[in-house]
Amino acid sequence: MTSSDEALNARHNEKAKKRQAAKAKIMADKTQEKGLLIVHTGKGKGKSTAAFGLVARAIGHGMKIGIVQFIKGSWATGEKAVYAAFPGQVEHKVMGEGFTWDTQDRARDIEWARQGWEEVLRMVRDPAYDMVLADELNIVLRYEYLPVEEVVAGLVDRPAMKHVIVTGRNAPDALIEAADLVTEMVQVKHPFRSGVKAQKGIEF
Amino acid sequence: MTSSDEALNARHNEKAKKRQAAKAKIMADKTQEKGLLIVHTGKGKGKSTAAFGLVARAIGHGMKIGIVQFIKGSWATGEKAVYAAFPGQVEHKVMGEGFTWDTQDRARDIEWARQGWEEVLRMVRDPAYDMVLADELNIVLRYEYLPVEEVVAGLVDRPAMKHVIVTGRNAPDALIEAADLVTEMVQVKHPFRSGVKAQKGIEF
Repeated sequence: MTSSDEALNARHNEKAKKRQAAKAKIMADKTQEKGLLIVHTGKGKGKSTAAFGLVARAIGHGMKIGIVQFIKGSWATGEKAVYAAFPGQVEHKVMGEGFTWDTQDRARDIEWARQGWEEVLRMVRDPAYDMVLADELNIVLRYEYLPVEEVVAGLVDRPAMKHVIVTGRNAPDALIEAADLVTEMVQVKHPFRSGVKAQKGIEF
Repeated sequence: MTSSDEALNARHNEKAKKRQAAKAKIMADKTQEKGLLIVHTGKGKGKSTAAFGLVARAIGHGMKIGIVQFIKGSWATGEKAVYAAFPGQVEHKVMGEGFTWDTQDRARDIEWARQGWEEVLRMVRDPAYDMVLADELNIVLRYEYLPVEEVVAGLVDRPAMKHVIVTGRNAPDALIEAADLVTEMVQVKHPFRSGVKAQKGIEF
């Protein structure tokens, strides 16, 4: 090691010590445990995938998870094989045949949105569920199939340790306002642009 | 249903038909299958969680996955319980004791970075693995513990159907340039700000 390497290392190590001390101080103040209202929004990929990551992690902890899927599509065989390995932990409901993209009947879509929301509300209120995922609920709100105020009030009023995850682009402001954790997934680059189709293990 | 509702529904249904036709046309051109180089970057949460979502989905499809974790932390009991339910599918390596935040020895960190990268490269080249996750590799590149050119070249030169996922904030431009799919996770709201600690099923 040269002397300039040694100097670089020494500076780095000194900085790392300070950073570690600062982090320890911050973390010492974080003592609260509570159920989080989590929102994954934005046009990029990863909103439902990150939600499934949270679900899978919770499965691994022995938690009970309720999922209501508002748009048909990406949740399929990969996810279900994981649930099957942990019987009784995941209840996954798919509303209707999926909204909007594949149906052409707005009145029926609104009815299904209502049914889906009633399922979410049941799971949110039932203390048996540790985590509830309302996948693509934001789309339903965007189309005004459900009143935003009613949905936000229903999600906020829940048992103290219940985690709720809502996904979908265009999360309404009132939901973002009410949430504890909001991540926007921004699309920087997408393979569909270059002719690649949806693939096993990636999109489904 | 009022006549104005009916008119709204009719307009909506007409639009939905057009949208569905447009989507079908786009999807018909997407015929290519290839291993993707995926990057999750940005300061927001969900980078590693979405990667774990992809891993869990791939597990459900019976794929074999290699994971090299460059920073100690969030990958823990939840994830490992999922792997354990699918014996032999996931090989998960943790490099050293984790970089930067908890060590104060740059020379040793660089050695571990090199060891981790050799593991990634082995998994990327070995056709037995369908998917390889280099978790927080971007941090290592950010600190210049490994040459970016060498890493990008190693990830690009891989079997045709191999999926590779790289996570971590501050993804270097050369990696973004080489990637097929890049999502930036943007932090809109974070519960640590309001005194909530890392919790089971959410952060680990």
